[in-house]
Amino acid sequence: MTADSNPGPTRRGFLAGGALLGVAGATFGARQLAGAAPLHSEESHSHGVMSGATFRGSGVVDPAINGFDPTKILRDFDYGKVSTLPNGRTLREWTVTASDKDIEIAPGVKFPSWLFNGRTPGPTLRATEGDRLRIRFINNSKHPHTMHFHSIHPSEMDGVPGQGAGLVAPGSETTYEIDAEPFGFHLYHCHANPLAEHIARGMYAGLIIDPDGGRPDADEMVMIQNGWNTTFDGEGNQMYAVNAIPFHYMYAPIQVKKNKLVRIYLGNMLEYDPINSFHLHANFFKYYPTGTSLVHSEFTDTIIQGQGQRGILEVTFPFAGKFMFHAHKSEFADLGWMGFFEVTE
Amino acid sequence: MTADSNPGPTRRGFLAGGALLGVAGATFGARQLAGAAPLHSEESHSHGVMSGATFRGSGVVDPAINGFDPTKILRDFDYGKVSTLPNGRTLREWTVTASDKDIEIAPGVKFPSWLFNGRTPGPTLRATEGDRLRIRFINNSKHPHTMHFHSIHPSEMDGVPGQGAGLVAPGSETTYEIDAEPFGFHLYHCHANPLAEHIARGMYAGLIIDPDGGRPDADEMVMIQNGWNTTFDGEGNQMYAVNAIPFHYMYAPIQVKKNKLVRIYLGNMLEYDPINSFHLHANFFKYYPTGTSLVHSEFTDTIIQGQGQRGILEVTFPFAGKFMFHAHKSEFADLGWMGFFEVTE
Amino acid sequence: MTADSNPGPTRRGFLAGGALLGVAGATFGARQLAGAAPLHSEESHSHGVMSGATFRGSGVVDPAINGFDPTKILRDFDYGKVSTLPNGRTLREWTVTASDKDIEIAPGVKFPSWLFNGRTPGPTLRATEGDRLRIRFINNSKHPHTMHFHSIHPSEMDGVPGQGAGLVAPGSETTYEIDAEPFGFHLYHCHANPLAEHIARGMYAGLIIDPDGGRPDADEMVMIQNGWNTTFDGEGNQMYAVNAIPFHYMYAPIQVKKNKLVRIYLGNMLEYDPINSFHLHANFFKYYPTGTSLVHSEFTDTIIQGQGQRGILEVTFPFAGKFMFHAHKSEFADLGWMGFFEVTE
Repeated sequence: MTADSNPGPTRRGFLAGGALLGVAGATFGARQLAGAAPLHSEESHSHGVMSGATFRGSGVVDPAINGFDPTKILRDFDYGKVSTLPNGRTLREWTVTASDKDIEIAPGVKFPSWLFNGRTPGPTLRATEGDRLRIRFINNSKHPHTMHFHSIHPSEMDGVPGQGAGLVAPGSETTYEIDAEPFGFHLYHCHANPLAEHIARGMYAGLIIDPDGGRPDADEMVMIQNGWNTTFDGEGNQMYAVNAIPFHYMYAPIQVKKNKLVRIYLGNMLEYDPINSFHLHANFFKYYPTGTSLVHSEFTDTIIQGQGQRGILEVTFPFAGKFMFHAHKSEFADLGWMGFFEVTE
Repeated sequence: MTADSNPGPTRRGFLAGGALLGVAGATFGARQLAGAAPLHSEESHSHGVMSGATFRGSGVVDPAINGFDPTKILRDFDYGKVSTLPNGRTLREWTVTASDKDIEIAPGVKFPSWLFNGRTPGPTLRATEGDRLRIRFINNSKHPHTMHFHSIHPSEMDGVPGQGAGLVAPGSETTYEIDAEPFGFHLYHCHANPLAEHIARGMYAGLIIDPDGGRPDADEMVMIQNGWNTTFDGEGNQMYAVNAIPFHYMYAPIQVKKNKLVRIYLGNMLEYDPINSFHLHANFFKYYPTGTSLVHSEFTDTIIQGQGQRGILEVTFPFAGKFMFHAHKSEFADLGWMGFFEVTE
Repeated sequence: MTADSNPGPTRRGFLAGGALLGVAGATFGARQLAGAAPLHSEESHSHGVMSGATFRGSGVVDPAINGFDPTKILRDFDYGKVSTLPNGRTLREWTVTASDKDIEIAPGVKFPSWLFNGRTPGPTLRATEGDRLRIRFINNSKHPHTMHFHSIHPSEMDGVPGQGAGLVAPGSETTYEIDAEPFGFHLYHCHANPLAEHIARGMYAGLIIDPDGGRPDADEMVMIQNGWNTTFDGEGNQMYAVNAIPFHYMYAPIQVKKNKLVRIYLGNMLEYDPINSFHLHANFFKYYPTGTSLVHSEFTDTIIQGQGQRGILEVTFPFAGKFMFHAHKSEFADLGWMGFFEVTE
């Protein structure tokens, strides 16, 4: 590829040195982002002007297009159908369906996703430690899939190829049944091979297991970090997000209240990059890695997570106003992993 | 390079989109993995089919070929020759010899390694805090080497160029003598320049310093994470492993007992990649970073380690069965950093 | 680019396999390092000889050339102009000026930097929790800039585009006024877009907020890790350092006293790479992530930090001598992120 054949912005080619890219900054079309064009073109750059990646899109993706809304996903906890077992334990039942769908990840940019319950991240399953969890998994996708839970459970319920139900073929189904152990914030995802692709296509979500007695009252929300490898090269990502849609919470800031405890269940399902990070502006949070302790391990404004890692953040905003949050891996922020909290009285 | 000149699978070229790569999945030859062929060929890929790296080999490497067996290395602790000094302290003495050897890292794939005591990782040296450690180091390799210990010791015992014995020339030897401080799980490795190469060639191992009084009884094992840069480009790895041989513990699952405490001394000596990670399926472990505290810092199923980092994991398996463990950096898992625990009654 | 057109050492092209690169090892000129030549040339390499990056320069950069000295920056704490407010609180006032300057980052290698107060890292601002901080920011650079503090403060003082004073245009100024909260070791940096470039150009520094009552007496110093993207491609770094000048503390070892507590305020402002790391030879330190607790979280010799992360290290050297410290990401160490402590009685 040469600069002539694709004069548009690419990862290396966007010369941002002197230009000022504000929040309402540069706009460019879907072709450059979603196409199969290689990113590493050898376009020229001036000495002393740094290249770098950024896009700020032309507005927010209309949630009606995808059939799911990151603003609603944030606080959408699925407690399942609840009943009591003969031995007195609580049983929670869900049906989760896999499907294929081209979703819009930026205005005009389509991506062929594989989804749990028609959304990504999939439904946030929520229970209390010791509950019995029964998840009926129906595969309506054209590809074999599984559900693999980060929890303590027997090997036949592990949702990996060759164990228990193993791969669930298109048109088939299985039922996973596990205990809710241990309390904390966990993840579940498809574990079919190639693992990286099944995750990168969108098949992951949160599993919250509350401690017996619960946690202190708070405004709770779930954020799962991910990336979009729009060139399908398996080498990196061209867009980054929290809860799937790049810049969604920049255009639709998360509404929270001053002096009210906010609890964020944060996980990282980013493929191809070694780590992700979360930085909150002008405020500090307590961090509980994996959420398995009621005592925080750190009080900070910046943490990192490798893939599969997750934790709970607790923050109280002492000031009203808009506060940015984003990966402190600047490239990820420039490419979509950025949003705002809007704090009101 | 073009697709025509090398039609075989490469890191980017292996089109895994629709295919299902199970445990006994795709096999390809040694040439593509071990040769000097660049990985970043510009082969075409279909829109919507992700490229990605994977190999599952054609079986396990016969330990007789290399003269060491990852299954035995796992639980092989070398306490040295023990005596008592006039002041009552325990003296432990070892002889460690460096040598060059072409080892087989996958069936048919040879790699020109540099080794401590003919194996990689080298011998796991084990002592109790406060012991005196005397290590006679003989260099039978064609290259200068050192032994650098992660411990508290005088600068002349640091095993770096220009200090104390400095570089130990081929055919020469030196003796390192240090106190076993502090208790924890540490690493030692060659610190000759270029450092990255001497580590990547295989010159590293674990140093366990037990706390006075020891730790609770457990089934103990050592795992050192590494990678193999089979293209010798110093830019990345084409295979990944724990204890040197990719997929060894997939073909030879680690045998452990249900309800018995398992203690894993886990270190990361991976070159060229920024982090490594460890994920255990269906079970959670207590994590003690560096092993220098008797109180764990986290209870989780996924941790990350930068190079030189290490820690102790404690896990009790409540269910019998086979449980996968692997890097949750999916690419590393696909390229060899994957295995199983087989839990029996 | 071909090997013919640039036969000098490049990141991949420096064949270090058999050669021994000691501390006073290979020297090469500024052109290869500082020029806009792409690093990823396809030079040939022999099978079995690893490529790798390294440079050790031809000596130390004369501090007079840049007008700042990393040895002085290490222990240079700026407490500001101190007065008492009517309500009894301490007010601290600083003036910080942005400017553009070509600095010498290795002998003969110039880099067009953007600086706070003519140096990088900028002045280490230091206060006690609860103080009022007033920072007059004057932009004498040709580019718009801001000062963004990692602390708890109102959104209009956040130093980001579109909030409060927003971007400060060339020739303009603004005043930030915040409370010193919470205690710990924090960072401040320019938050103009593109963020990665403004950080990578040199616009960052430390903010120490001491706990009420202070910390135990110690020999204190500040180290901010960074990289230099001398090809301006926004894809990676060609040099690495702590406190800006690669290898400075190798040529000018940090002087400390045996058995005296040393406290290091360590932060990571490295762009383009996912993590950085710090390894201290032959000694262990207590680590306080973000410095927000008076209880350390770890006792180790190796930690990693993502960008924006920082922490406090406390170490007492029991032996006199020279002790290396460096990134345990070996490539970073080979490319400048290496130094010595010289411990005397």
